[in-house]
Amino acid sequence: MAKEITARTDDYSQWYIDIVKKANLADNSAVRGCMVIKPYGYAIWENMRDQLDRMFKETGHVNAYFPLFIPKSFLSREAQHVEGFAKECAVVTHHRLMNAPDGSGVVVDPASKLEEELIIRPTSETIIWNTYRDWINSYRDLPLLINQWANVVRWEMRTRLFLRTAEFLWQEGHTAHATREEAIAETRQMLDVYARFAEEYMATPVIKGLKTAHERFAGAEDTYCIEALMQDGKALQAGTSHFLGQNFAKAFDVKFLTEDNQQEYVWATSWGVSTRLIGGLIMTHSDDDGLVLPPRLAPTQVVIVPIPKPAAQINEEAEKIMKALRAQGIRVSYDTDEKNRPGFKFAEHEMRGVPVRLGLGLRDLEAGQVEVARRDTKEKKAVPLAGIAEYVAQLLEDIQQNLFDRAARFRAEKTTRVDTFDDFKAILETDIPGFISAHWDGTTETELKIKELTKATIRCIPLDGEVESGTCILTGKPSAQRVLFAKAY
Amino acid sequence: MAKEITARTDDYSQWYIDIVKKANLADNSAVRGCMVIKPYGYAIWENMRDQLDRMFKETGHVNAYFPLFIPKSFLSREAQHVEGFAKECAVVTHHRLMNAPDGSGVVVDPASKLEEELIIRPTSETIIWNTYRDWINSYRDLPLLINQWANVVRWEMRTRLFLRTAEFLWQEGHTAHATREEAIAETRQMLDVYARFAEEYMATPVIKGLKTAHERFAGAEDTYCIEALMQDGKALQAGTSHFLGQNFAKAFDVKFLTEDNQQEYVWATSWGVSTRLIGGLIMTHSDDDGLVLPPRLAPTQVVIVPIPKPAAQINEEAEKIMKALRAQGIRVSYDTDEKNRPGFKFAEHEMRGVPVRLGLGLRDLEAGQVEVARRDTKEKKAVPLAGIAEYVAQLLEDIQQNLFDRAARFRAEKTTRVDTFDDFKAILETDIPGFISAHWDGTTETELKIKELTKATIRCIPLDGEVESGTCILTGKPSAQRVLFAKAY
Repeated sequence: MAKEITARTDDYSQWYIDIVKKANLADNSAVRGCMVIKPYGYAIWENMRDQLDRMFKETGHVNAYFPLFIPKSFLSREAQHVEGFAKECAVVTHHRLMNAPDGSGVVVDPASKLEEELIIRPTSETIIWNTYRDWINSYRDLPLLINQWANVVRWEMRTRLFLRTAEFLWQEGHTAHATREEAIAETRQMLDVYARFAEEYMATPVIKGLKTAHERFAGAEDTYCIEALMQDGKALQAGTSHFLGQNFAKAFDVKFLTEDNQQEYVWATSWGVSTRLIGGLIMTHSDDDGLVLPPRLAPTQVVIVPIPKPAAQINEEAEKIMKALRAQGIRVSYDTDEKNRPGFKFAEHEMRGVPVRLGLGLRDLEAGQVEVARRDTKEKKAVPLAGIAEYVAQLLEDIQQNLFDRAARFRAEKTTRVDTFDDFKAILETDIPGFISAHWDGTTETELKIKELTKATIRCIPLDGEVESGTCILTGKPSAQRVLFAKAY
Repeated sequence: MAKEITARTDDYSQWYIDIVKKANLADNSAVRGCMVIKPYGYAIWENMRDQLDRMFKETGHVNAYFPLFIPKSFLSREAQHVEGFAKECAVVTHHRLMNAPDGSGVVVDPASKLEEELIIRPTSETIIWNTYRDWINSYRDLPLLINQWANVVRWEMRTRLFLRTAEFLWQEGHTAHATREEAIAETRQMLDVYARFAEEYMATPVIKGLKTAHERFAGAEDTYCIEALMQDGKALQAGTSHFLGQNFAKAFDVKFLTEDNQQEYVWATSWGVSTRLIGGLIMTHSDDDGLVLPPRLAPTQVVIVPIPKPAAQINEEAEKIMKALRAQGIRVSYDTDEKNRPGFKFAEHEMRGVPVRLGLGLRDLEAGQVEVARRDTKEKKAVPLAGIAEYVAQLLEDIQQNLFDRAARFRAEKTTRVDTFDDFKAILETDIPGFISAHWDGTTETELKIKELTKATIRCIPLDGEVESGTCILTGKPSAQRVLFAKAY
């Protein structure tokens, strides 16, 4: 395999597409804007999903499944929601095809027109809250802590594999609570779960924050988010957690009997992350040689390559090593392909982002050692075969930590505090602008004006930002706290 | 909870619905024919899915994900396939809603009409084989062993929770091979995987067989199936595995370069099981007190009920038991509800089909014992606390085996060999007709005539049926092998 990846500095967008295609993560499909997630990309998603699912269950959530279809009228029930989600969506209008009268194939049977059109879910608040009305009667039924793993469709005009596709896979949590306080606590808890997942598993440092009113989820009282910084200095929203107040309960008439025998509307949250995370993973860690994966999410953590090719003695040692690694819970494979040379295989495993490669030749065996190469730093060294499993287990931990540290250093370098609009614009004109921490007067008007002038948006009002009064970089009006700006995906 | 389940002998259909509803497995939704899978039902599906997924991976398959949408023209590419699947399906015709000019809500934007309508996948052979054309070039790319977990939609007119719904969850394997023999071996291998899953995990004995030409999957050369017998004497098709020949490769022009440098069409299989299996599980084992679940698939395998309610000493012992059971990999919970009496809880856990219940009271503790109740036989006995984990682990195995044996005995009792059409009809007029093994002349005409006269269909030509010549029960024409008839879901 020739290394045909475009360099990041030459064309970052093309570099991204090259990685997705050449590491066999995903492909465009015959259907506009929909992707095919290839086995290797899907294996990464499985690892993400399994870990998130464990974290959801540890925090008391259970999974369920709600219909793909949403009656059109449901979308209109919540005034903000319909504005946000009714626009670009897939609409089912008929339920039958028939043979074309002229024999040219099949056509839609006009007699099968639905009385009410169905929308393919862009998100499931409406169908789920319509269901919760039947499930919730009293405070004894609360809290209801449900998550769904599903596909959703948003008819995007400009799509990019993983980052923005018409159909994508995600999870959406939808919880119901007796009090405002409990719902807010749930919203914050799930934000913390997302942040922990991003940092501990994706090795991606994130900023936790609150979205501005303008960037809020359609139908939410507050939207919390985690924001990550990509290598091109643009931000990626990696997950959101919404406090929905009583908006959906009111729209779908979901009340409960309190302990004091009062009828009250139920409080709601929803929260989600999607296959977009795979895009974030790629853009946080990968390099011009291909994908770089954090060991905890890598489908294959260690690959053993026989030098120069499989042979009885090497195979035997490889089996021994695999057994020892597997006993430590490490995902390892042995590259038994006889057709290609080691150099070709090295490039291929680098392209796929396998964190650790063990090169095993007869001369190594005689010397009682193996060549260990790590993907993140490209370092190679000879390591004694005795104790190799413990060495590799520790190395995987080190790589996981190094990737996080590297990304955190990058983010620190690329986060700038500015106090004037000129400085703000100057940063945004650099190659890798990053996060900009600046004062803002708190109005949507100013937010939109800044976006219009610079393409930068307010990513979030950081939760752990120091409270510091100042003046808005655009209007000079008073501000109580710096917010985080960036160009974004 | 009052026991409000209709008795099977009074109204079997209502009994089934009562179980699904009262055991909290699923609900109807606001969308015609689509169900909501509730958390308890979904937990069963998760256990099925995880086990099947392990078995697929053990046989070398990987997961991937293909688009929800299929361009309408794709369905027409394979002549048989379009006849089978283009009829009742959900058709997406537009991609945008807009505010109604009269302010009455949202309406479909006529300007957003799609050039080509999209079908929600009823099955994915077409979109997948259209993709495989890009993935397969040479014999080195084969075999391609891919599975997908997904939702599919078939616009059914008469629906029943789990058994037949417009949207359902399933897995669909789609494999590509260099030779006919290898593809047939794969088809048979996956049939064996399904049969093993049904028997070892669902505790449901199945007959492996071949479908008749009339019952074959649209586009297949051969359809293999597993057939199970429900308690009302009707058969349920529990899984199918199709040998597709080169039909889809020809329809989508998927060729490969052989080792001899020849261009040849690729050989295909597909195979699937769905949430329908949950319906089969219910109807195989449950009784008039509620759900009965085989331990290997039960979300909760053991529940501990404090008698008469939680107390410090009981809680402490329960924690000890839970720890010991969990160390054996047993899924156990402790019912700490203080509001309801033990009798109420017993009925509730029986309704939910929890295989083993431990009743733990102070008097038991003093005597160093616990009351163990098994759901399958309703037997109760006092068992020493010492060694309780080992006892329960063995009991769960015994229950799993007993459920299988009971279902196998039932099937043996309800399988009849007949040699005349009068006997055939007489059996079908009994309350619980079951499987009928009879001779058939091999023609679709006779098959349809028998169906018209009796509502019984040929479930399969059993793979392990003895080859025995005879004469067709309807026409008297010669037959080489008995086939299996039944009324079916």
